[in-house]
Amino acid sequence: MANEQDRMEKIVSLAKRRGFIFPSSEIYGGINGFWDYGPLGVELKRNIKDAWWHDIVRCPPLGPDGQHLQMVGLDCSIIMNPKVWEASGHVGGFNDPRVDCKVCNARYRQDEIDQMTAPERLGRAIDVVMTGMSAIQAIHQFSIEGEYLKKGLKLIEKRKLDFLAEPHYERCPQCGGELTEARQFNLMFKSHAGAMEDSASEVYLRPETAQGIFANYKNVLDTTRLKVPFGIAQIGKAFRNEINPRNYTFRSREFEQMEIEFFCEPKEADTWYEYWREARHKWYIGLGLKSSKLRLRNHEKNELAHYARACADIEYEFPFGISELEGVANRTDFDLKAHQEKSGRDMTYFDEDTKERFLPYVIEPSGGVDRALLAFLCEAFEEDEAPDEQGAPQKRTVLRFHPRLAPVKVAVFPLVKKDGMPEKARAIYEVCRAEMAAFYDEKGAVGRRYRRQDEAGTPFCVTVDGQTMKDGTVTVRDRDSMKQDRIPADGVVAYVRERLSRPSPAKAGPATARGGR
Amino acid sequence: MANEQDRMEKIVSLAKRRGFIFPSSEIYGGINGFWDYGPLGVELKRNIKDAWWHDIVRCPPLGPDGQHLQMVGLDCSIIMNPKVWEASGHVGGFNDPRVDCKVCNARYRQDEIDQMTAPERLGRAIDVVMTGMSAIQAIHQFSIEGEYLKKGLKLIEKRKLDFLAEPHYERCPQCGGELTEARQFNLMFKSHAGAMEDSASEVYLRPETAQGIFANYKNVLDTTRLKVPFGIAQIGKAFRNEINPRNYTFRSREFEQMEIEFFCEPKEADTWYEYWREARHKWYIGLGLKSSKLRLRNHEKNELAHYARACADIEYEFPFGISELEGVANRTDFDLKAHQEKSGRDMTYFDEDTKERFLPYVIEPSGGVDRALLAFLCEAFEEDEAPDEQGAPQKRTVLRFHPRLAPVKVAVFPLVKKDGMPEKARAIYEVCRAEMAAFYDEKGAVGRRYRRQDEAGTPFCVTVDGQTMKDGTVTVRDRDSMKQDRIPADGVVAYVRERLSRPSPAKAGPATARGGR
Repeated sequence: MANEQDRMEKIVSLAKRRGFIFPSSEIYGGINGFWDYGPLGVELKRNIKDAWWHDIVRCPPLGPDGQHLQMVGLDCSIIMNPKVWEASGHVGGFNDPRVDCKVCNARYRQDEIDQMTAPERLGRAIDVVMTGMSAIQAIHQFSIEGEYLKKGLKLIEKRKLDFLAEPHYERCPQCGGELTEARQFNLMFKSHAGAMEDSASEVYLRPETAQGIFANYKNVLDTTRLKVPFGIAQIGKAFRNEINPRNYTFRSREFEQMEIEFFCEPKEADTWYEYWREARHKWYIGLGLKSSKLRLRNHEKNELAHYARACADIEYEFPFGISELEGVANRTDFDLKAHQEKSGRDMTYFDEDTKERFLPYVIEPSGGVDRALLAFLCEAFEEDEAPDEQGAPQKRTVLRFHPRLAPVKVAVFPLVKKDGMPEKARAIYEVCRAEMAAFYDEKGAVGRRYRRQDEAGTPFCVTVDGQTMKDGTVTVRDRDSMKQDRIPADGVVAYVRERLSRPSPAKAGPATARGGR
Repeated sequence: MANEQDRMEKIVSLAKRRGFIFPSSEIYGGINGFWDYGPLGVELKRNIKDAWWHDIVRCPPLGPDGQHLQMVGLDCSIIMNPKVWEASGHVGGFNDPRVDCKVCNARYRQDEIDQMTAPERLGRAIDVVMTGMSAIQAIHQFSIEGEYLKKGLKLIEKRKLDFLAEPHYERCPQCGGELTEARQFNLMFKSHAGAMEDSASEVYLRPETAQGIFANYKNVLDTTRLKVPFGIAQIGKAFRNEINPRNYTFRSREFEQMEIEFFCEPKEADTWYEYWREARHKWYIGLGLKSSKLRLRNHEKNELAHYARACADIEYEFPFGISELEGVANRTDFDLKAHQEKSGRDMTYFDEDTKERFLPYVIEPSGGVDRALLAFLCEAFEEDEAPDEQGAPQKRTVLRFHPRLAPVKVAVFPLVKKDGMPEKARAIYEVCRAEMAAFYDEKGAVGRRYRRQDEAGTPFCVTVDGQTMKDGTVTVRDRDSMKQDRIPADGVVAYVRERLSRPSPAKAGPATARGGR
């Protein structure tokens, strides 16, 4: 557990130092629950979204009977007519029971307080030393590699025994003060559209992208020639006013979703539910998540949301615990029915073959982009050894991203800054960057340049050396094996492209295979 | 003008009918100023953003002296610490003077009322027949191809003379009622983060992506090895609570920006301003906007924003008038200085060569994704003639998108649904869709299938016919010339790829060349 915490601190520190993830508005002390993606992070995030879009919309897997899936995309506005959220039940029901501390005004979710073990209450106490800031965020914020934690531990040392004592639900984990009764707190961000700030102009930031798909289901049917079964996919931002954002970017207030609503005949819903559960599980494995850390957990009956007939979570073992990456649910016709009632529009589907009219059932695989990114980042992080310039083993930090996800695909170096090598390397870099994210570096010893690319997760480094100038070949160094191939300089793009397009083991082999390693 | 209105109505109608653009939350009567992108629209929008990201971040053009530009990306949160907006001046100054009608409560921007000509006031009157809905939105909404306009015209017939009379600024263009004094109205959407709704928890939806870049400028400097000049680029949503959203998707309340902040030495700012002005102008031409409809307009001194030393608008001649696609501004050190003062953080840059320390100047090319999409859509729309199955000329509607932007790159058809042609066509489609957005269609006469793809803007249609089964060749039909090439079936991907990667005329030739036609 201490090891895992240590590992998480290292990942957070690397993500800050190398420009993957920054706290939002850091120069103003940050803002709780919001994060920015830096130069490497934005590329990683784009690659995850592009991989999903390609694998779901443009080139989806074959169906359970080997049939072609019909999938289209959609991009809806974040602010919609508020009636959407009345129909979906979010205005009435998207609440967290909340308790406040009467002494220090700290705010908690009732279920969190209820479920907290003593060590967790200790952890929470550490969290809130900084107002509303999680320990991980604070460590990140001050780049002090665990020092803050120690300081935080010291700060609460005096109160420690209290927190480790038996549960005292009515007490504040921060100051021990009395707590209020539980009150309902709606998680949607509210705003106003138009010039007047009154209830008529009240709007919400969407708490999920799914409802935009349901609201457009008829438009999509009318403008395409899709027949059930078919899917509509969307990637976009969503917002939830979480009471306690935590676990780094895992539970934030602004996040990005990648959601599919797959419309099918009610009698085929179970088949499609099974299909998508497996397909989505495999997708993560295929992009490099170890199947031993990835779990497919079926919800118990009493765990199911009121709209769902079945639900499974794809969970990942993060350093801070096992948490959900994606949920796959059989939502039945709950949403279409609700919108049909509220809007008065006919939402039924007419089957021209059977002449039947029905409300399709919907299977929803709903994933978080930021959570996927965090899982890929945690999975990729490794410390091993690499030989230094003299061949002596040195510790190295490496991000073993699947090549499809790596922010930079190929780095190009001249061995030395003379003898025409920089010009030749530049020329190769020019060709590469027209096709893929590439990086040019001529500063420092080659070994150090390799280390920098290892930390960025770059799978291939191309070096122009003396032999290049004689025979036109370059070395391609593999990030993971650290082995070098010699290939013709004009074959670099084809070489990398081939490696990028290799079918992932998840598609080619059993689901337990490790993707792209 | 009537022709242009007619043209706009056709474009709006096609965009709805073929699934490019839908009004948001249409089943609930829509919501003023918000739009959704349908299956074809989302692909078009993705292609515009991907083209920009590739051409700006991953493979930017060479600098004015042929040097390589250093460009990185960023992806910031929409909700930031509100101090960002105090420093940037948006809390204090991002206002529109607003007047209200005391009779009907209609709301206008003062400057709109002041500048309105008589015909414009007439147009406005038509707009507001539907509460807060523009004529174009209303036409779109009800898919009635101009009927609404006629009805609207009839409705205000009685009042027509009033509106066409001399300016009467203190009168409401809708009902002729008395107007209030001008009041300030802040265009930022407000919300609250955290459990309490008080002024301490007040946050804003960003009205521009630029400030996220300024707030992270130091983080980027610290985590990369960039030296001035360098650029940071970002694509993302922004929100402005426009009093009167109008002109279809052109002025909406939720929109997407693609912005560059290019940091340079103050003495080089003029050179970089000129550079980006030209480079951004050429980008639009290279992707197919006719240079005769595209204008580069330098702002007059009295037009400049308080922070800008120079500014140029890249404008496009839409059917509804000439309007701004992108602004290129020399923002000087205004923003970095403001954040330095407000945050107390040192924002200076240290030049290791000259040992000088200074605040960089910033050149900002700031474009709208939705506006670019609308311009590409308007430009691409054409009606011409194509031979029908018997060779007789028939009217056709075609979207002449640049192949890089086309939502679908290639459609694959079997000539008839027998003799193994569907299987062969399916196999070709499979290979294509692994590489690019592809479409398979076997329904109806081939001529009608071509027409459907013409309307979607698909540049290439591949047909499997009797000869294919004998010699393995297929026809590739070009959307624009309607000519057919015969090529080997296994050469389709390479053929399309070559056409997609052709350097646009804007890069290869003079700026007046038409891109990709």
